[in-house]
Amino acid sequence: MTTIDAVLNSIDANLEAARARLFDLLRIPSVSTDPAFTQHCQTAADWLAQQLVSLGYTADVRATPGHPIVVGHARAKRKDAPHVLFYGHYDVQPPDPLDLWEAAPFDPRLIQGKDGLEIVARGASDDKGQLMTFLEACRAFEANGGLPCHVTFLFEGEEETGSPSLPGFLAANREELSQPDLALICDTSMWNAQTPAITVMLRGLAQEEVIIRGPSHDLHSGMFGGPVLNPIHVLSKIIGDLHDDTGRVTLPGFYDGVPELPQDVADQWRSLEFDEEEFLSALGLTQPGGEAGRGVIEQIWARPTCDVNGVVGGYTGKGSKTVLPAQASAKFSFRLVGSQDPKAVMESFRAFVRARLPADAKVEFLAHGASGALQLPFGSEALARARRALTAEWNKEAVLAGCGGSIPIVGAFKRDLNMDALMIGFALDDDRIHSPNEKYSYTSFHKGTRSWARVLDALSA
Amino acid sequence: MTTIDAVLNSIDANLEAARARLFDLLRIPSVSTDPAFTQHCQTAADWLAQQLVSLGYTADVRATPGHPIVVGHARAKRKDAPHVLFYGHYDVQPPDPLDLWEAAPFDPRLIQGKDGLEIVARGASDDKGQLMTFLEACRAFEANGGLPCHVTFLFEGEEETGSPSLPGFLAANREELSQPDLALICDTSMWNAQTPAITVMLRGLAQEEVIIRGPSHDLHSGMFGGPVLNPIHVLSKIIGDLHDDTGRVTLPGFYDGVPELPQDVADQWRSLEFDEEEFLSALGLTQPGGEAGRGVIEQIWARPTCDVNGVVGGYTGKGSKTVLPAQASAKFSFRLVGSQDPKAVMESFRAFVRARLPADAKVEFLAHGASGALQLPFGSEALARARRALTAEWNKEAVLAGCGGSIPIVGAFKRDLNMDALMIGFALDDDRIHSPNEKYSYTSFHKGTRSWARVLDALSA
Repeated sequence: MTTIDAVLNSIDANLEAARARLFDLLRIPSVSTDPAFTQHCQTAADWLAQQLVSLGYTADVRATPGHPIVVGHARAKRKDAPHVLFYGHYDVQPPDPLDLWEAAPFDPRLIQGKDGLEIVARGASDDKGQLMTFLEACRAFEANGGLPCHVTFLFEGEEETGSPSLPGFLAANREELSQPDLALICDTSMWNAQTPAITVMLRGLAQEEVIIRGPSHDLHSGMFGGPVLNPIHVLSKIIGDLHDDTGRVTLPGFYDGVPELPQDVADQWRSLEFDEEEFLSALGLTQPGGEAGRGVIEQIWARPTCDVNGVVGGYTGKGSKTVLPAQASAKFSFRLVGSQDPKAVMESFRAFVRARLPADAKVEFLAHGASGALQLPFGSEALARARRALTAEWNKEAVLAGCGGSIPIVGAFKRDLNMDALMIGFALDDDRIHSPNEKYSYTSFHKGTRSWARVLDALSA
Repeated sequence: MTTIDAVLNSIDANLEAARARLFDLLRIPSVSTDPAFTQHCQTAADWLAQQLVSLGYTADVRATPGHPIVVGHARAKRKDAPHVLFYGHYDVQPPDPLDLWEAAPFDPRLIQGKDGLEIVARGASDDKGQLMTFLEACRAFEANGGLPCHVTFLFEGEEETGSPSLPGFLAANREELSQPDLALICDTSMWNAQTPAITVMLRGLAQEEVIIRGPSHDLHSGMFGGPVLNPIHVLSKIIGDLHDDTGRVTLPGFYDGVPELPQDVADQWRSLEFDEEEFLSALGLTQPGGEAGRGVIEQIWARPTCDVNGVVGGYTGKGSKTVLPAQASAKFSFRLVGSQDPKAVMESFRAFVRARLPADAKVEFLAHGASGALQLPFGSEALARARRALTAEWNKEAVLAGCGGSIPIVGAFKRDLNMDALMIGFALDDDRIHSPNEKYSYTSFHKGTRSWARVLDALSA
């Protein structure tokens, strides 16, 4: 029997004990946003460090301005093995509203759900259950001769509040934490219950508020309407000009660095038989908008956008008021992909706005942050190995998925540690994360653990 | 000596007595908006009725759902004389803020101002002083053989609160009040202290709120941005499309019924040497916007507009929020001139909006009222006579002025009584109406009274 088969057997044989350990962690109400739970966050961190130590790893709980971060180190049995950093978070969302839970949120239960056994508790899926799949895979290796990779563990307790302490922590511990070759993150979803997914692309985000000013004060539209410039008109024209009739963004240079999908990825996405009609219908829509000729999945995962997230000017109460407003403003956001340069996009945007200002219109720009897209190269060797490992476990090819939104920690790993991330998770869309009765499929927990064993094995092969 | 000369002499000789009567009226704090002053409004109405009765006219104070309306009737010495309706209002704005008044607002004073004697009190200009110029002109005729015109007097007490009772009152008394051939209104301004003005055109106003709806609920712009239509974009494109590069409104048929100015009027307006630079500079602007090639005065008095008075959609608080909003809305107003049909304009506007809705965008229209422009025909005989009368008094030709805003009572006279209005007033731009230390020039009071005597005489000639 090969080592990996022994490891997988060990996982199967010890599943109930693994579940019991996860339940211990789920019983700790480590809600990060509510100061009343601060001590419980500390307890969860201590519990995780203890788990690492019990496996023979070094581990400590390090203080931050917020909740502690657990750092652990494990050596592979082979000195020249690859080195990975595994990230997870032990904090959870508040359980409110409590009256919608069928049982106490921090009293985990294993119940028979419509698609099989489910672990129900706050944090079951996000992220305690996912985090533990990796830890249990490590445990199985330790019972069978040791790890195939060196592993650095990083467990934070502020993910649900935006990870405020993490960037400073990475910077302060850069030498220690930048040793690994690759980050592994278990905080994402499968494509569906049968099909695993690796999230390989995250869109970037650049945000800018624009304030257009005209007359020095609000004016009566009867007494002044005509010769007085109306900032709402100026702003609206700019917004209207930002897209052409085919839904493309008209900013000069905007599509520089936007790659077309590799043929095999495009083929895979088409083969997913994603039901656009059902997706849109849930939003009250019947037809895809946006870039003509591009599907919903491609648009959300792999195409850049320009959206106005808010606009306001003049009188917005009930009824009418004959006012010519002194100013109007809008909040713009650009989702970025590939190697689009956020700085170049913002410069092009500002020039675009300035070029459309009539005499006497003044503009103010308020930057609200800009970061580029993150892409694990499609040709990456680690990606190919992880895909093979997941196919072996699930008998289905893993979907190379994108994510329309950003995941700040991935950006932090790239920016602060210069490290790519392989995002593999076993959550399902109906896990009710952040909602009452959050659950994690027992199958996800079991086969997720097996998947990590296979991935670690594959990475070291 | 002709009658008019005798009348003018009489006005000159009795000016101090006239001023004393005005002061009696100014002492009554007839603030219409504040229920605490309701009894004072009644007192002012009674006082005016008493004035009419003392001149030998019939007069009564008629109850309305709000403050009373005074109606009086006076017969001319000649049975076949023309019949005019004179309108004024006895209510005033609240005097607040009281601490900015140099003396008590309802304790009128005659003081030496920088340009001559001034009557200072709340209502001195708006509209008690103006109203009394007409009454004193009538008094002078009565002392010299009688009126040259039949006169119906209509004094209301709710002008400062939007004249809510007036339309119902006109409708209920249509037979009585529609006998006159022409309405005379004294509630407007001179062009400047030396130059009288007759306001002959008021722009109309049509208002419509537009709500554009897209997805059924707000969405995360990362998770959904791309294929989901953004109602802010749809609305902005519509607003942007409403004007062309020369500032003209692009609605089909919008300029139907928009006349070019008669040459003599255009020449007069040009000769006014209106300081556009100064006008714009007070608004923080340096150049006229709007329709290319049209001056500021022409645009405000005689050209139609389309303005957005308010727009709102999505997140409008501080900072950023990555939301795709479910709806966006804007309040549109159209200032109308000439014979533009408000109904046709609104129909064209709605069609324009509907033609620009992408699939899945829904629109709701909320009408906020629509009324056409009011224009005293430039060729009107009454206008020609009034101009001659004013030229005789001021030694300057009266400016045929427009007013960019609407004056609801003029619309009510036209709509409910089918009566044109001749608006002649002697207020000055620096009269501080609605503000502390409101004043009325003693010269306006004196020469205003003389002007009305000349106008009444001219109308009956």
